[in-house]
Amino acid sequence: MDNRPIGIFDSGVGGLTVAKQVIKVLGNENIVYFGDTARLPYGSKSKETVTRFSKQIVRFLLTKDVKSVIIACNTASANSLEELQKTFDIPIFGVVVPGASEAVKATKNKKVGIIGTVGTVRTNAYKKLICDYDSNIEVFSKACPLFVPLVEEDWTNNEITRLTAEKYLKELLDEGIDSLVLGCTHYPLLKQCIGDVVGENVKLVDPAKETALTVKKFLTENNMLNDSKEENHHIFYVSDYTEQFDVLCKKALKKVYKPHVINIESY
Amino acid sequence: MDNRPIGIFDSGVGGLTVAKQVIKVLGNENIVYFGDTARLPYGSKSKETVTRFSKQIVRFLLTKDVKSVIIACNTASANSLEELQKTFDIPIFGVVVPGASEAVKATKNKKVGIIGTVGTVRTNAYKKLICDYDSNIEVFSKACPLFVPLVEEDWTNNEITRLTAEKYLKELLDEGIDSLVLGCTHYPLLKQCIGDVVGENVKLVDPAKETALTVKKFLTENNMLNDSKEENHHIFYVSDYTEQFDVLCKKALKKVYKPHVINIESY
Repeated sequence: MDNRPIGIFDSGVGGLTVAKQVIKVLGNENIVYFGDTARLPYGSKSKETVTRFSKQIVRFLLTKDVKSVIIACNTASANSLEELQKTFDIPIFGVVVPGASEAVKATKNKKVGIIGTVGTVRTNAYKKLICDYDSNIEVFSKACPLFVPLVEEDWTNNEITRLTAEKYLKELLDEGIDSLVLGCTHYPLLKQCIGDVVGENVKLVDPAKETALTVKKFLTENNMLNDSKEENHHIFYVSDYTEQFDVLCKKALKKVYKPHVINIESY
Repeated sequence: MDNRPIGIFDSGVGGLTVAKQVIKVLGNENIVYFGDTARLPYGSKSKETVTRFSKQIVRFLLTKDVKSVIIACNTASANSLEELQKTFDIPIFGVVVPGASEAVKATKNKKVGIIGTVGTVRTNAYKKLICDYDSNIEVFSKACPLFVPLVEEDWTNNEITRLTAEKYLKELLDEGIDSLVLGCTHYPLLKQCIGDVVGENVKLVDPAKETALTVKKFLTENNMLNDSKEENHHIFYVSDYTEQFDVLCKKALKKVYKPHVINIESY
């Protein structure tokens, strides 16, 4: 057994929705979370920059003696997972592989929609994986850059957000999708609004839960679960602190954790 | 006379609207522009982080032998101008002081509105300066975090942008303002939409032109203008390159410059 913590990182605080699922599914694990709040968002940035930032973060997490790393950020998962797996000698998981697998299970008519940041959609990572699983599935992707700022403004279900969702999702609905991957950690916070726009016949797929289950399976099969009876620890680090952290932390985890601020650029 | 270039920096590409005014007003000057596209936006980040980033950038610009620096970014001007002026031994100008001075000239009924990022509004920098000029002026501020992503989505005048502007500006209009400072470099690109919402009786103040005039006055009075007859150079640096740079560069400067990519974290 392995009582070291699991590292989770994200471009900011959206990844707390993934942390929430990990805490739920892997209740006995210690967690070290890092949010790159000084340099967020990643969704508009290049593959090279996102990968450079992600490597710095994994180096930081390794100083906290993590036994594995979960990339909670879709943009970093889509752009940097392979490079991180090549570079570091611990198990590293992204959210895109579990999300794609879940989408394959969800679709009946073999038409899947993907929404995410510009950086996630540009890679076609979801599309490639889904077509690897089942080449008969058609995948339609749409970048929705306004969804993150709408969540951060706490406009999760007003007229502006509904009109924005209608505008972004129209072309996916016109293609007749029956399932839609929420390919950005902020999007589950818009579930109500997105659900109203796509209607009850389109299943919303949130990769977070499947990611937590994937990690649980891996740790179980490799005898790496935490078997300690001590109270477990959830520790939070950020590269910049503003009250925004408290707001989204409370929303995602129903509790405010005081994060430690570090200079990620030095890793 | 001083033929070294003027340094201009911004959190990203919004500052190109300031560069445009500098090029217009100071046509014979060489310019080195830096946009921190890897770490943008600054508007949601803390004073400490914005100041740390800004110091790195001025150190970088000094390696390009600049004779003065213009902080094109309102958030960096509002949060870091004083600290930069204390730290570095060259003339440094922000956009907030000229913008505030312009607002004082613009208002007749002594009710001024300020819109900007969360980080700009939090400092009350515009408000303090305007009240220093004229303590009878009332200043009403409103952070408008969705305006930047709306510009970057190129939704500069659709229904969603209009509704967003109405929602943000209502309380300022209810106070009876007769002038409104566009306290973020992206906002002039929403001029049409904001102008429609506030109506023709509210004057829109764009700090960019006044900033360029302030710098011209300073360089003239201090015999620091460029008197070379050689063709002048405008050189652009960014910390991350995506096509977004080309799009906004073309919009602001009517020309696409190829930027050099540098690692700002090493300065």
